[in-house]
Amino acid sequence: MIDDQEGRFLIRPLEMGDYDRGYLQVLGELTIVGQVSREQFQGFLDHVMKSENLYLVIVDKQDDRIVGAGTLLLEQKIIHSMGKCGHVEDIVVSERVRGRNLGKLLIEALLKHARSMNCYKVILDCAERNVQFYEKCGFTRKEVQMAVYFKDSKC
Amino acid sequence: MIDDQEGRFLIRPLEMGDYDRGYLQVLGELTIVGQVSREQFQGFLDHVMKSENLYLVIVDKQDDRIVGAGTLLLEQKIIHSMGKCGHVEDIVVSERVRGRNLGKLLIEALLKHARSMNCYKVILDCAERNVQFYEKCGFTRKEVQMAVYFKDSKC
Repeated sequence: MIDDQEGRFLIRPLEMGDYDRGYLQVLGELTIVGQVSREQFQGFLDHVMKSENLYLVIVDKQDDRIVGAGTLLLEQKIIHSMGKCGHVEDIVVSERVRGRNLGKLLIEALLKHARSMNCYKVILDCAERNVQFYEKCGFTRKEVQMAVYFKDSKC
Repeated sequence: MIDDQEGRFLIRPLEMGDYDRGYLQVLGELTIVGQVSREQFQGFLDHVMKSENLYLVIVDKQDDRIVGAGTLLLEQKIIHSMGKCGHVEDIVVSERVRGRNLGKLLIEALLKHARSMNCYKVILDCAERNVQFYEKCGFTRKEVQMAVYFKDSKC
């Protein structure tokens, strides 16, 4: 889908084979992944295929391994003349390939999809230390993210 | 679904008849709604019915009008052992019925649905002035919301 300037990395939609290319390990650099079986992963992909959401991965063509990932969740609204809002989620670039502009290329690919789906806006939540990165990607600081964690959740 | 103490207000899922009960006008107290035809609204509801997302409204039983609304969008993740994240969106309580604890009842109903769907967390973005309200609902301040608006969007 998108090649970096070196031609070493490729950004493309998530596919079944990525289960064996280290997709879950890369997500593990972001947060807790837990146990995800091959069957669960296939079920997830079947679900994704039926949606307008986009799950992208960055592949290192040198060793055919996943080195980054990011999601664009699409929300159909009533407001804004039944407009769509894009939610950027779970952006990660593996530590071993950072500093090569891959994160920016990934965000640009997600934004391109959001435009093509006629989103009126794209939002995301990030840590204070990542604000500058997202500003370079065209985002501006908006509101406050609030969260509730369910302590009794098994996840 | 949920009655307030007075028994005057009812919180229940959005339905087709709410098009004529002032649902769009209440959303208009939140932001720009634009033109939404009856057919578009029906299409939206058909889409909602097939999803796990929950669209709630507050009905004033005195005059059978919608006086509030809120959404819980469910996101299936891979992370957290294929956990689900709930996104609270587009919360509004009509100005004419504020100060009756209806906002808190609405959020509690959305959180109840999130628990029943086994979400590991629920997140939302709000203006600084609303942080205290969401803290009373059990949320805590987390990250920074960033946004891109597409200027060429028709919405």
